[in-house]
Amino acid sequence: MSTTQPHEHIVKSYDEEQRHLVEEIVRMGLTAVAQLEAALDVVERRDDSAARRIVANDESIDEAERRISHDVMLLALRGPMARDLREILAGLRIPADIERIGDYAANVAKRSIALNAAPPMPHTTGLRALGLLAAGQVRQALRAYRENDGELALQVRENDARLDQQYTALFRELLTYMMEDPRNITPCTHLLFMAKNLERIGDHATNIAENVWFLIHGEQPLPPRDKRDDTSTTTGAV
Amino acid sequence: MSTTQPHEHIVKSYDEEQRHLVEEIVRMGLTAVAQLEAALDVVERRDDSAARRIVANDESIDEAERRISHDVMLLALRGPMARDLREILAGLRIPADIERIGDYAANVAKRSIALNAAPPMPHTTGLRALGLLAAGQVRQALRAYRENDGELALQVRENDARLDQQYTALFRELLTYMMEDPRNITPCTHLLFMAKNLERIGDHATNIAENVWFLIHGEQPLPPRDKRDDTSTTTGAV
Repeated sequence: MSTTQPHEHIVKSYDEEQRHLVEEIVRMGLTAVAQLEAALDVVERRDDSAARRIVANDESIDEAERRISHDVMLLALRGPMARDLREILAGLRIPADIERIGDYAANVAKRSIALNAAPPMPHTTGLRALGLLAAGQVRQALRAYRENDGELALQVRENDARLDQQYTALFRELLTYMMEDPRNITPCTHLLFMAKNLERIGDHATNIAENVWFLIHGEQPLPPRDKRDDTSTTTGAV
Repeated sequence: MSTTQPHEHIVKSYDEEQRHLVEEIVRMGLTAVAQLEAALDVVERRDDSAARRIVANDESIDEAERRISHDVMLLALRGPMARDLREILAGLRIPADIERIGDYAANVAKRSIALNAAPPMPHTTGLRALGLLAAGQVRQALRAYRENDGELALQVRENDARLDQQYTALFRELLTYMMEDPRNITPCTHLLFMAKNLERIGDHATNIAENVWFLIHGEQPLPPRDKRDDTSTTTGAV
């Protein structure tokens, strides 16, 4: 709480280490975004071997999470103040969200391989738009974390509604293709799961944003937010 | 490392607190399993209002995670030894997995509401079997955590393959129903996502088991395990 003069040197090196970890986490996050963007590209280009590379790269994100959470815990043992505690929690939770984002990106790539075994579908445009929106949300959330920007974090959280709307529209569109022609069912099922993965990436961007808010403001005074993926209550035949 | 006599009282109360937290986490986990089992029941009984209660109950699991991670971090600031560090990491990661299990259970309940708007489908038996298998895996993983049982943890990890196989079989079965009759597409899509949620619950049970192994043995000497949800590479029309 108070800036105790005698510990200034120790405090500074703690802060430096903390700063270094934030940079590591942001770097990890940007790797996940790059994986996502690469996955969207391989869907477009129908490139199986590039898709396999993306799947294999996911391991480096998993490893980064293990390394970072270990370093965060070591740092935790040095800084017992309230703000430090929040930084530590954010430093463990944000990499966990990034790790999941990496998994979803890899899954998009993996499903693109299955998709490529069928004739090309014209419906990947909506998927790409959804994916780029999700990538943008992750980038903004990481920027909010790096720059300690609570307002930007709130904005990410608000923008998630747009992503959910686009997901719902794509979901309904895919259902109609399935109904039109049974041969579309298998590829469209893959596209449904790919779209769901992108929507989940948006949720993890929101989680990151909420952790940034918590980091800055302490106990979350954020209003409860409804989940807006309303496909799980979609009952009509589109 | 060494059992320093003068700190014995402090060490003991640290251990008591640690033990208390494990119990809290197990309780949280059993709540998630109860939510899952209730969700499987409402699918069977087509009971919308019970489904809504399950969705609403999920908030209590989310809150437990926030509370527990806060308490784990407070404890972290007291115990700087290697084994403590692993206990702290497990104490943060396991509740995060349980929280996700709770989310998936609530999503199964939510989708059952959508399903109930359509005429009953005969295909929920496979879903129920898959769900009970997943619930069993979570229970075993929690027992391994509570009893510090590395062998049981390994067993949970091995058994995940069975769950994945059952998921893949159900996935293919649902695709055939969709192809037979376009009217099945919307309900089967919900069932596909519900099945996917159950398969993911199995993955989180495996995560918990791997954390128990890590807690006991330190750096993970576990062989890399392939993801066996091979529906993402299912290309044939079944």
